[in-house]
Amino acid sequence: MDKRLIYLDNNATTKVDEKVVEAMLPYFSQEYANPGGMYDFAGRVGAKIKEAREAVKEFMGANNQKEIYFTGSGSEGANTAIRGFLNATPGKKHIITTKVEHPCVLNTYKDLEKSGHKVTYLGVDADGNINLRELETSVKPETALVSIMAANNETGIIFPYEKIAETVKQINPETKVFVDAVQAAGKIKMDFKNTKVDFAAISGHKFHAPKGIGALYVKGGTLFSPIITGGHQERGKRAGTENTASIIAMGKAAELAIDGLKEELTRVKKLRDKLEQNILKNVFNARLNSSTGNRVPNTTNIGFEYIEGELILLYLNELGICASSGSACTSGSLDPSHVLRAMGVPFTALHGSIRLSLSRYTTEEEIEYTCKVFPEITDKINKLSPFQKELAELKSIKEHHT
Amino acid sequence: MDKRLIYLDNNATTKVDEKVVEAMLPYFSQEYANPGGMYDFAGRVGAKIKEAREAVKEFMGANNQKEIYFTGSGSEGANTAIRGFLNATPGKKHIITTKVEHPCVLNTYKDLEKSGHKVTYLGVDADGNINLRELETSVKPETALVSIMAANNETGIIFPYEKIAETVKQINPETKVFVDAVQAAGKIKMDFKNTKVDFAAISGHKFHAPKGIGALYVKGGTLFSPIITGGHQERGKRAGTENTASIIAMGKAAELAIDGLKEELTRVKKLRDKLEQNILKNVFNARLNSSTGNRVPNTTNIGFEYIEGELILLYLNELGICASSGSACTSGSLDPSHVLRAMGVPFTALHGSIRLSLSRYTTEEEIEYTCKVFPEITDKINKLSPFQKELAELKSIKEHHT
Repeated sequence: MDKRLIYLDNNATTKVDEKVVEAMLPYFSQEYANPGGMYDFAGRVGAKIKEAREAVKEFMGANNQKEIYFTGSGSEGANTAIRGFLNATPGKKHIITTKVEHPCVLNTYKDLEKSGHKVTYLGVDADGNINLRELETSVKPETALVSIMAANNETGIIFPYEKIAETVKQINPETKVFVDAVQAAGKIKMDFKNTKVDFAAISGHKFHAPKGIGALYVKGGTLFSPIITGGHQERGKRAGTENTASIIAMGKAAELAIDGLKEELTRVKKLRDKLEQNILKNVFNARLNSSTGNRVPNTTNIGFEYIEGELILLYLNELGICASSGSACTSGSLDPSHVLRAMGVPFTALHGSIRLSLSRYTTEEEIEYTCKVFPEITDKINKLSPFQKELAELKSIKEHHT
Repeated sequence: MDKRLIYLDNNATTKVDEKVVEAMLPYFSQEYANPGGMYDFAGRVGAKIKEAREAVKEFMGANNQKEIYFTGSGSEGANTAIRGFLNATPGKKHIITTKVEHPCVLNTYKDLEKSGHKVTYLGVDADGNINLRELETSVKPETALVSIMAANNETGIIFPYEKIAETVKQINPETKVFVDAVQAAGKIKMDFKNTKVDFAAISGHKFHAPKGIGALYVKGGTLFSPIITGGHQERGKRAGTENTASIIAMGKAAELAIDGLKEELTRVKKLRDKLEQNILKNVFNARLNSSTGNRVPNTTNIGFEYIEGELILLYLNELGICASSGSACTSGSLDPSHVLRAMGVPFTALHGSIRLSLSRYTTEEEIEYTCKVFPEITDKINKLSPFQKELAELKSIKEHHT
C-alpha cells in the first residue's frame, strides 16, 4: 500500500464509495435481522431494503419497485433473464445476440446451444457497431430472445438498444429483449420504462457498490422462472436470505451514481479523452481500437502494434498503474479478445491491446502521470519486439503524417 | 435501538462478528481490485481469497481447496448441487429426500418434479427422526441423488448423514448424496472428507458471516454443471466476479466458528437447556416438539397448545425478544410448519409452535429474562383462547403430574 496506485481498470471493478460503506456498515453487527422475521428488528431492515429498491428503480428508470429484483451479480442477472425466460417459454428456440457480448452472456448461449437452442451471433464493424439491417433480417417468428449489451466492456461502444428493442418488437412483438447493462450503469443514463426492453441486468461493483450484488429489471408482466428456487424472497424469483447490507449499499451507490452522472459525462470524459489523445499522439505504434463516437465516457481501448499487451501491463504494474487487456472474466487466457477480433482489429495490434477505464476517483494528476510514462514504457517494449523493421516503417509513416 | 433486544432467532440469521467485519472492511474501499486482474493490486486480493478458501476447507473438513466453491447463499449452493448434478447426469430421474427439508431444497424438488423427476419424500417420526430402513428400501438402481439435511432448521434435530451416506453407497455406489449443512455449520463439527457425502452446502450468515455468501463442498471428481454460466471464476463452476469482501469475511467466520464450537456445545447448550426446561416447567400448555436427543445445541422448538404462535411472537416482540414460528423463508404464510406436520405434532399445538435459537452472543441474563416473561405472556394469551375448557383440563392434568 506504500506504492503509488493509479487504478485505470474501473470496467473490471470499482472502489466502493466510502458513503456506501458507511450506509451498509450498520447492517452487519447492529441491524442484522433477517428481513423475513416477524418482529420490529426485522421490519426495520425490510423498510431499508424497500428504500434501496426504490433507489435502484430510479437508477434504472423502472416503472415501479416490482420491476426490480436483487441478484448476486451481473452474471446471475443475465443467467436469470436468459435461462429464466427461455425456461418459461420452452417452445421457441431461436436467440439473436452479438459476437461482442460479455462472456457471462456468450458462454450462456454456448451452453444453451447444447440443449437445442439456435443462436445467431451478429457481427460488428471496425468501429464496433452492429448492422441494424442484419439484425432486422435475423428476427423470425421463432425468435424467443434478442440479447444485446448496452455498452461494450472492452471498447465502451454503446449499442442503440432502445432503437433495437423498438425494431425487434415491430417485426415480432412476441420476441423479448434482454439488455446487459452492466457497463452502462453509472456511465450513461438508463430509462428502461420508456423503452421496449424486457430484461436488463446491472452489477453493483461496476458503480462503486460492493461485489456480490446485482439487480435485474423485468418489465411488468414479463414471465420468467427463477434459476435459484426455494424461499419466497424477491417475490419468488430468487430464493435465499436477502443480502441486506449489500442491497442497502447498492441503493446508496445508485443514488450517488444518479448524482454523479454529470461528472462522468464531463470531467471523467475529459480525462479519458486527454489520456487517449496523449497516447495516440505520443506513441507512434498506438491505434484506437474503436471509433471515438458513441462510447461510455470512461473507457478507451488502444492497440499497440507489434508488441505484447501483457508486457505493457507488466511495466504499468511496476509503476502502480492498473489496466487490463480485456475482460477480467477472460483473464488468464492467452486468446486475444473476442471483441477486438470481431471488430477486425489487425493481428499486428490484437495481442498488444490495452483497456484503460476511469472513474470519478481518477484524478488529473494520475492521468498526467500515465500520459508521461506510456511512451517511456512502449519505447522500452518496442526495443524487445521481433518486428523492428515493421516498427521502423510505422514510425516513419507516423512522422511523415505529423 | 433504545429498546432491549434479545435475539433468539439465530437459525434465521446471526449477528456478524465484529472481528469478521474488521477482516472484510479493507476490501471495500482500499483493496478493492477484481482478483482477475493482472496486477499486484489484484494478486493481493487473490491471495486473501485463497486464505479464506483454506479456512472454509478446514471448517467443512474437505480434503483440499479444490473441493470448496463459493456461492451467493445456502439456497444457491443447494440449487447448484441438486440442479448442477442432475443436469450433468440426465439419465437418472429418481431422488430421495425427506419431508422436513428446508424450502430451498423442497421447492427445488417440487420444481424438478415438473420436468419428469420422481421424488421419494421420507417421513419422520414424532421425535423428528427418519426411518433408516425406509431409506434403504427406497434406494434403487435409478436413484440419482439422496438429499438429506444435516440438522433441521426448525427443531435442530440432527440426521445421521454420515451413516446415511455409507448406507446409500453400499446399496448403489452410483447414487450421490447431498447434505444441506446450513444449520449444522458452526453448531456441530463437519468433516466431510471422512464421509461418503458428495455435496454439502453451507451459508455464511448462519455462523456470524454476512448474508449473501455461501460455500459448496463437492467431493473431488464429482461431476456437476454450473447453474450460473459465464466467466471462469470458481474454476468455471460459478460465474461472476468474486465477492471478495464476503469471501474473506466467511473465511474469518469459519476460523472463529472452529474455535467457538466448544462454546456452542457447552455454554450455548446449557443456556438452551435452561430456557427450554424453564418454559416446559412453568408454562402448563407447553410441549417440546422434538426429542431432547440428538439436536444442535442452540435450538428448541416448543408447542403451546390451544393458542396462536403469531400472538406469542407479537408479545415477545413488544418486549424486544426476537423469535420465530418456523423458517424465515416461509414467513408470511399462514400454513403451519411442514416440519411439525411431518412429525405429527397435534393440531392443538401446531399453530402455537415457537422456535427459539441461541448463539454465542446470547447471555445468561437474556435467557433469565426470557424465562421470566414467557409464562406471563402465555398466561395473557391463554385468556384470549377460545379453548378455555381444554386449557383448564390441560392445566389440571399438568398440576396433577407435578
